[in-house]
Amino acid sequence: MSEPPPVSERAVVLLSGGLDSATCLGWARAQGFECHTLAIDYGQRHRIELEAARRVSAALGASGHREIPVGLRSIGGSALTADIDVPKDRDERAIGSGVPVTYVPARNTVFLAIALGCAETLGARHLVAGMNAIDYSGYPDCRPEFLRAFESLARVATRAGVEGVALRIHAPLLELDKADIIRLGLSLGVDYSLTHSCYDPAPAGEACGRCDACLLRLRGFREAGLPDPARYATAQHP
Amino acid sequence: MSEPPPVSERAVVLLSGGLDSATCLGWARAQGFECHTLAIDYGQRHRIELEAARRVSAALGASGHREIPVGLRSIGGSALTADIDVPKDRDERAIGSGVPVTYVPARNTVFLAIALGCAETLGARHLVAGMNAIDYSGYPDCRPEFLRAFESLARVATRAGVEGVALRIHAPLLELDKADIIRLGLSLGVDYSLTHSCYDPAPAGEACGRCDACLLRLRGFREAGLPDPARYATAQHP
Repeated sequence: MSEPPPVSERAVVLLSGGLDSATCLGWARAQGFECHTLAIDYGQRHRIELEAARRVSAALGASGHREIPVGLRSIGGSALTADIDVPKDRDERAIGSGVPVTYVPARNTVFLAIALGCAETLGARHLVAGMNAIDYSGYPDCRPEFLRAFESLARVATRAGVEGVALRIHAPLLELDKADIIRLGLSLGVDYSLTHSCYDPAPAGEACGRCDACLLRLRGFREAGLPDPARYATAQHP
Repeated sequence: MSEPPPVSERAVVLLSGGLDSATCLGWARAQGFECHTLAIDYGQRHRIELEAARRVSAALGASGHREIPVGLRSIGGSALTADIDVPKDRDERAIGSGVPVTYVPARNTVFLAIALGCAETLGARHLVAGMNAIDYSGYPDCRPEFLRAFESLARVATRAGVEGVALRIHAPLLELDKADIIRLGLSLGVDYSLTHSCYDPAPAGEACGRCDACLLRLRGFREAGLPDPARYATAQHP
């Protein structure tokens, strides 16, 4: 899933507004793709994500941006959509183990399915998504075997597939750790001050600095030896 | 996908409010499944479908019913969600050929993905859906190879899959023609007066009798030698 794609092809890029997917968009633009970004409004508690996705899409020169509502909240079962407390101040070694409570059931399957529909109407043969097998090893749908299975599904699920056009899923961050992702994004001109990662932001949008997403992000910047331009509710000590 | 399932297991049944999915629910209940029905509110032009799904779910004794919104309208590309005319009075031989304009891109992929999320939160190991390879041969996502690919995806996409629990997709109508489906449903006590099939109903809910869905339904009842209890805007001559 990593050889260079042909230039000037169209791609649908899943954009959450976070650091990883912003890096994906930077990567996809650098590959020469005409990028159409897609943000899923799935009833996330932190709706500031959707605003961040719009900012990132515009800043990185996407050709179009769609926001598609999906009622994942009605599926339930996750701290990101239901009334389950977001874990705070966890030992970083615990973050990557097991399936976390912030896992939204079948989320990436739903997101890729919608991206597949967009790809079909746009005539795009490429999907770009920020799945990562390092920091999110506990999420079943962030693993390479999931992406390969979805590519197989896409070959039989769509009009393009029936006509013999294979859809490719690019997950350029799959094997990178957070510091690598940050270095990659900065080399591609991604402005991380536009992104939002926190699972539990303050009302004015400041990141909490204590949830798993904040801890992973802060560790990434620390390991990359760079300051995190995000605004935090409390002072961070690198 | 057709050997008898164990009794008293939980199943998620996709319910559109139409004849096929009502028959699926009747089938799933007869198999002994504890059924949780799922209707997708995807911005369909004929919202009367969603009311029919609620009626059918209650009438056939489902244990629960969820309605989940998905903005497929924002994906576009289909006469069922966009401003494309629904074809009328087509030659019935033309209905099953090619990919019709009423095809919603990646619709069944999105629907099964959401059903997969519900199955995970409910602890259900079975999905039941009304795909049919006879009347809908032009829809890529109504083919057996699509269902097999989705089962493979489910094995790697979910927490249950990671824990070794395989999810099974049942498509009991896959190889049946419309008359067979109607005979099956009636033998299972399905009340087809509760169902709605028309792609372009009148404001008061009467079926048009002329779109592909009406023509297939009417032909099914005609071939089964039975009257269609649906209300039509114009008199039907069997």
